[in-house]
Amino acid sequence: MTHRYDQLWLNANLFTIDCNSAATVMPDACLAVTGDRITLICPMRQLSAAPEQLAASVHDARGGWVTPGLIDCHTHVVYAGDRSMEYRQRLQGKSYAAIAEQGGGIQATVRATRQASEEQLLRASIPRVRAMLAQGVTTLEIKSGYGLDLAAERKILRVARQLAEVLPVRVVTTFLGAHVTPPAYRTTPEAYVDLLCQEMLPQLAEERLVDAVDVFCDDIAFSIAQTERIFQTAKALSLPIKCHAEQLSHQGAASLAARYHALSCDHLEYARQADVTAMAQQHCVAVLLPGAYYFLQAGQKPPLALLRQYRVPMALATDCNPGTSPTTSLLLMTHLAQHLWGMSTDEVLLGVTRHAASALGMADSIGSLQEGHIADFVIWQIEHLAQLSYYFGYIPPHQTIKGGVPQQEASHEQSQ
Amino acid sequence: MTHRYDQLWLNANLFTIDCNSAATVMPDACLAVTGDRITLICPMRQLSAAPEQLAASVHDARGGWVTPGLIDCHTHVVYAGDRSMEYRQRLQGKSYAAIAEQGGGIQATVRATRQASEEQLLRASIPRVRAMLAQGVTTLEIKSGYGLDLAAERKILRVARQLAEVLPVRVVTTFLGAHVTPPAYRTTPEAYVDLLCQEMLPQLAEERLVDAVDVFCDDIAFSIAQTERIFQTAKALSLPIKCHAEQLSHQGAASLAARYHALSCDHLEYARQADVTAMAQQHCVAVLLPGAYYFLQAGQKPPLALLRQYRVPMALATDCNPGTSPTTSLLLMTHLAQHLWGMSTDEVLLGVTRHAASALGMADSIGSLQEGHIADFVIWQIEHLAQLSYYFGYIPPHQTIKGGVPQQEASHEQSQ
Repeated sequence: MTHRYDQLWLNANLFTIDCNSAATVMPDACLAVTGDRITLICPMRQLSAAPEQLAASVHDARGGWVTPGLIDCHTHVVYAGDRSMEYRQRLQGKSYAAIAEQGGGIQATVRATRQASEEQLLRASIPRVRAMLAQGVTTLEIKSGYGLDLAAERKILRVARQLAEVLPVRVVTTFLGAHVTPPAYRTTPEAYVDLLCQEMLPQLAEERLVDAVDVFCDDIAFSIAQTERIFQTAKALSLPIKCHAEQLSHQGAASLAARYHALSCDHLEYARQADVTAMAQQHCVAVLLPGAYYFLQAGQKPPLALLRQYRVPMALATDCNPGTSPTTSLLLMTHLAQHLWGMSTDEVLLGVTRHAASALGMADSIGSLQEGHIADFVIWQIEHLAQLSYYFGYIPPHQTIKGGVPQQEASHEQSQ
Repeated sequence: MTHRYDQLWLNANLFTIDCNSAATVMPDACLAVTGDRITLICPMRQLSAAPEQLAASVHDARGGWVTPGLIDCHTHVVYAGDRSMEYRQRLQGKSYAAIAEQGGGIQATVRATRQASEEQLLRASIPRVRAMLAQGVTTLEIKSGYGLDLAAERKILRVARQLAEVLPVRVVTTFLGAHVTPPAYRTTPEAYVDLLCQEMLPQLAEERLVDAVDVFCDDIAFSIAQTERIFQTAKALSLPIKCHAEQLSHQGAASLAARYHALSCDHLEYARQADVTAMAQQHCVAVLLPGAYYFLQAGQKPPLALLRQYRVPMALATDCNPGTSPTTSLLLMTHLAQHLWGMSTDEVLLGVTRHAASALGMADSIGSLQEGHIADFVIWQIEHLAQLSYYFGYIPPHQTIKGGVPQQEASHEQSQ
């Protein structure tokens, strides 16, 4: 007997989108998978035959909720070293400058990441990615930016690719060589931008390690002019662009990035109306990072009212990194965005699914429950969708399905 | 061949206490278990023979860290119903009074909990307790207080006992019939205290469902005089006392509870010096609840400086409940206490181990890694102990051992 579908999930409430791409719920529904694709989404009452006749394998979601697999679209999860002691010092009142002077801060992570072998770096990163997967993530963006030379940036990006081989996760890489100027170039930052544009980026793109290019544009990082040079190089290589924009001060980076058709502008605490309208015109996603906002006790909130007014899609991500957002919990980010910024349940859930997919240029294949999309989804045994961002801390998924394959939860696997 | 120990863990860094009960670390150490007890703790170099000769089963912690099993010493985790929608309304600016008027607030939980069958209540609570266990908890206090009549309070306490049978967790019950005055007694609160002291508490104690007695003493709950009546009843029944004290206003409840030799006073945001010295004299533990502080955006911090000055042991707990602290993440509480209140790593880790055990009157058998103690402990694959409260969100334990038995992590089990 041949079946129309490989697998069929019954009795589920689906978080999906309507014909206008707005969030909606399809209650008491079913979802079928064939190969790695979603091939049917419909209310239970519209099932055309007995489930066992339709699918080789039938699962009962028993009234649980189904969301798309969560997408963490902004992370620096591949790094070596430990900065927990530095955090303690900061809580005790030590300034960031004093910590940097004694060798701490981002340069400590750069040093440790450069020193680590590729295998050490992979081993250091696996537990963090496992923790993400145990919380419903199926797609993960990973930035370089703790290497700051060709060899070390390559190492990070290679580890990012390897993570997708050793763990059940889809990985998208972003080259962030322009994260901070490396110490050797402190007095000659233009020479580092030369190196980045002429050697590092072209070479790593050639090696197919780069899915997108990001620049941190700020007073303490790269200028608007330097940022534009890097964008031009990316464009010449036909690579999509992202930008750390307006986090600590207003630079006009978001408007610039929008002009270069950036997939996303990230952080945006200091973005102004002109930036937001430029982003809206170019369908650029706003990636908001409540973890860093919370951890830095920043105070300056991103301009949510403007982003809503101009209908800029808002994504949320962990920004997982050892200095400003040591977290692997994407659902906690949805809670923080709701609790600290007043985002709605629909906004935060679209922010870690559909709009996060758009921030990676992948909204045609992941991020929403649609026929034809890749079958990445999560089943939650909760009573109401709003519980996902109401509970804070840890909400274990009932099951995660990636590319049609039901996963053991990440924590089931043996740690190495 | 007979072995001296059943199990031996090698190459671990132990979070333990020194002869003055202060936090200390024993690096490069081993830990042996016989039956359900810890029977050896010593540096690796002091092992008297080859590990295989000493123990039937030898495990390599590979440089990981070992803490006592985490103890969540203040929870309301047994409840029915969902208040996530009410949370959304509050974020949208609706007042608590308005929500209560439309049937929301604590009375909504009381209604749902009364309506649930014992089995339904158990099923509703299991996922929350599972989530706690997946984060390293081995002992859990559970309060009643959403029943407010004999039958419903009994149901909650029976479910609390059942949780310890169906899941690998030690449960300590607390009778909190004096949580809030039930609607039927709103104009005659003294009659409810009569009922509580003359019928409910004696009957439930008789049924061995009550390990301790708690009272919420505040303007919106029970008065000092009512609280003292309930304490007297508890004393007459030889039951230890706890108290929700000084959370929303100063009542003098902490001093009163200390006079009655309370195990702990909990919340304490508005406690004053006289309360703290009374607690210190009576060795009463301060149970601090950063989740409720954070979730309510309360602003008034507990008097940490005074508690330190008078050496009152400080425990931390989730306060897991649907209205003011919807969280199951005890480690996130250690992070919040560090991040929002400036507690140190040692303080927060003692707060969820040794001092949490004291808050339950169990510091002689659990809460610290000591020979003779029950073998409840957690292995963490982290580089430094400070990482446990530096990461926020979810840190998966490598393995949890309860009563000498290595557990599958809670998330491994089939959900029902």
